[in-house]
Amino acid sequence: MADKQPTQIASLGEFGLIDRLTSHLKPRNASTLTAAGDDAAVIDCGGGRVMVVSTDMMMEGIDFDLTYFPLKHLGYKVVTRGVSDILAMNARPRQILLSLGVSAKISVETLEELYNGAETACKELGVDIVGGDTTASVTGLTINITAVGEAARDEVVYRKGASEHDLICITGNLGAAYMGLHLLEREKRVLSDVADPEPQFAGNEYLLESYLKPRARQDIIEALAEEGIRPTAMIDLSDGLASDLRQLCKASACGARIYLERIPIAQQTTALAEQMNIDPVVAALNGGEDHQLLFTVPLAMQEKVMRMGLVDVIGHITPAQSGVCLVTPDGEQIALRAPAFDRE
Amino acid sequence: MADKQPTQIASLGEFGLIDRLTSHLKPRNASTLTAAGDDAAVIDCGGGRVMVVSTDMMMEGIDFDLTYFPLKHLGYKVVTRGVSDILAMNARPRQILLSLGVSAKISVETLEELYNGAETACKELGVDIVGGDTTASVTGLTINITAVGEAARDEVVYRKGASEHDLICITGNLGAAYMGLHLLEREKRVLSDVADPEPQFAGNEYLLESYLKPRARQDIIEALAEEGIRPTAMIDLSDGLASDLRQLCKASACGARIYLERIPIAQQTTALAEQMNIDPVVAALNGGEDHQLLFTVPLAMQEKVMRMGLVDVIGHITPAQSGVCLVTPDGEQIALRAPAFDRE
Repeated sequence: MADKQPTQIASLGEFGLIDRLTSHLKPRNASTLTAAGDDAAVIDCGGGRVMVVSTDMMMEGIDFDLTYFPLKHLGYKVVTRGVSDILAMNARPRQILLSLGVSAKISVETLEELYNGAETACKELGVDIVGGDTTASVTGLTINITAVGEAARDEVVYRKGASEHDLICITGNLGAAYMGLHLLEREKRVLSDVADPEPQFAGNEYLLESYLKPRARQDIIEALAEEGIRPTAMIDLSDGLASDLRQLCKASACGARIYLERIPIAQQTTALAEQMNIDPVVAALNGGEDHQLLFTVPLAMQEKVMRMGLVDVIGHITPAQSGVCLVTPDGEQIALRAPAFDRE
Repeated sequence: MADKQPTQIASLGEFGLIDRLTSHLKPRNASTLTAAGDDAAVIDCGGGRVMVVSTDMMMEGIDFDLTYFPLKHLGYKVVTRGVSDILAMNARPRQILLSLGVSAKISVETLEELYNGAETACKELGVDIVGGDTTASVTGLTINITAVGEAARDEVVYRKGASEHDLICITGNLGAAYMGLHLLEREKRVLSDVADPEPQFAGNEYLLESYLKPRARQDIIEALAEEGIRPTAMIDLSDGLASDLRQLCKASACGARIYLERIPIAQQTTALAEQMNIDPVVAALNGGEDHQLLFTVPLAMQEKVMRMGLVDVIGHITPAQSGVCLVTPDGEQIALRAPAFDRE
């Protein structure tokens, strides 16, 4: 390796990196039903039941900024983030474990607030906090959540099951979390040298809540079960519609066509985006952290899905060679590309 | 809270902190068999089987120093650390998930080395890497391991099962990892301004390996099963004998008496400790990171345990009011105290 330049992580992107690190791994245990490459790992428990397990790390300065992120909300959001991965497998979340890396500047009361927020989310979702780890940190706060859920083995939905003509559904409007983050960043910038800062948030509460305190869509998983709908493929919308749809299509070896005018965007999202000179469609496609679910169902289920009243059908699955594209109202097709390792 | 000083984490200690954050939590799910407070959480799978799950975070600058910690060994050690928690529940490790927080200075090849080391340990242990997460980091490398294992529900061993007269057993000599760390730190200090540093490690390879590449004692769990021995209580020796024995005694509401001359210390550990003016007994009691197992068995099992040939009996369990103490060769009793939050 002496005469070889080291490869920058940014050149592979996050997904390329994970592929390179894990794609050659072969399971040794019969209970390992999936290796890496989905929202969560699936482990056989026998008796037709499985356990699904996911892990997620959030770092201060990258994933959150404590100057405007209330600890209580952060605790809540960490749970949403972990649990959304479990829901995206069509499983029921049951337990979480939290690891914390804490610097000396953080007090016990601060961590209690974080835990209170996590406990609020857990209570709403019927989830238990069953363990954790605490270590010192030389810098900021680091949080890792392990989420555990359960399901019948034949109910689990993977990213890989979509096929041609399936409908592409999403469970809520997109881009609100992204605009909430932009608003918080703007107020932080504007008020950075003001003695008694009074940020201007009036009228944008929905955006702030979407970013600071997003809800995990357990109601969707329950509604799908009630209607007897088992999606063919599913993924959590954490990186943005463009990126996550591409992940689903890659896993399913298919393409997709989604229609711009069908992507739901809240009125507050559009208003603030225009005010800040951001294209609301870009916010919806690339924003991320919406924690809605993206799933596909066979065409024949259209009526059943619409009856749920919780879901928007935004397009359909195509053959792989058509690629993943967005169709504008005047019929133009735009290939969707995901930003590489956009946090680098 | 306005007129109240924030509480420093150091004033509670790591265990006090976890107690304060988690002791009031009550499980909501029937499948949650334990809340926080053991090496791993125990989750019911039905059919008499359980799954055990643990989480552990390691941070650069606190838990490891990349100037002398080869990435391959670090990957190996992370797995040992995660898996040891599973073994300490008398369960069989099956799967792990890794979360990585990586700064821009780290290359893809570096992470591949880390993964190679993790994969080597997993191969030895028959464990699968089933998932993970990668996030950017503004500072150093952060690693979180989630380990998953399985067991028959009635085979699980908790920290809380020890009772009076039980024998206290450990599975190997102590303090070697601690002296390995001290040696590495000394050479780093001495050679910090030398152009071509040549650290003096000859004769101390065992200590370096104990710190850099400790093995998880899966052989012990297999041997116990073969001999038909089910310990009454067990804990992973990660924080040091004094601290971990106190944890076990606290959970079991008992005291303990261990005998100084029975604590196994390797000859290399003693030699280097004396050379560096460190009391070898302090290294063995407070060193930590040995990743041996500490367990208790009923007095009647003494012969069976000795027959295993892998275990040292170092003392016995006493009533709670006797406390946890060390008996010196001349009969003096010293109360064992654990250092507070010793990484702060």
